[in-house]
Amino acid sequence: MPVPDDVLAAMRQTNELFNSEVGAKRNVEALNHVYTADATILPPGAPMIEGRERIKAFWSQAIAAMDPKSVTLSTVKADSAGDTAVEIGRADIVTSGGQAIAVKYVVHWKQEDGIWKWHTDIWNLNQ
Amino acid sequence: MPVPDDVLAAMRQTNELFNSEVGAKRNVEALNHVYTADATILPPGAPMIEGRERIKAFWSQAIAAMDPKSVTLSTVKADSAGDTAVEIGRADIVTSGGQAIAVKYVVHWKQEDGIWKWHTDIWNLNQ
Repeated sequence: MPVPDDVLAAMRQTNELFNSEVGAKRNVEALNHVYTADATILPPGAPMIEGRERIKAFWSQAIAAMDPKSVTLSTVKADSAGDTAVEIGRADIVTSGGQAIAVKYVVHWKQEDGIWKWHTDIWNLNQ
Repeated sequence: MPVPDDVLAAMRQTNELFNSEVGAKRNVEALNHVYTADATILPPGAPMIEGRERIKAFWSQAIAAMDPKSVTLSTVKADSAGDTAVEIGRADIVTSGGQAIAVKYVVHWKQEDGIWKWHTDIWNLNQ
């Protein structure tokens, strides 16, 4: 089922927070507003990681290693699922060295404290 | 929310069909009972693929390349989402050459014609 416009707008707000605060400014504390407290991430090349504090530690390291200049998340498809939503998206990363990296992802979204957040987040690279 | 036992049992049946028919016997026609007609897969190292017929073509090639002896899917967590479910799982693949490959995945499940099927399927490797 299609995701209502107000939910899509709330999802966009969270994704843009990730782009600006985490991708560009490397402020991992902003992830409090991006992931649910008991979120799970499934990064390529590593086991799954559960819990927002561990996820913040992952992103601190990953961002230092990746050295992004910018990150741009775009929703490709979104599907309502009860009071949650499932998003298929792409992340276009440009590193400080000018390398472009194309990532695709699936996020299971839930509301926590009135904010739409990532509850399950898995991604991989196109190449 | 937890997934009801009868739905978990139906999901297990679909996963076991994939293990036996696709993983072991390489019968990609069995994917008619695994993926919804308009499913999307997001394989590592390739763009996303939409539609069951294209997904069957992907698996024909992927299985020939991977040469599995066995595939074992296991549900790690499952979450009810309206009349759908979101599963986090692992796939343990053993190739004919004896190599073990650990894969983790997220599947968004939907019912189609009374069968619980994979509507969105994304995975990556632990290493």
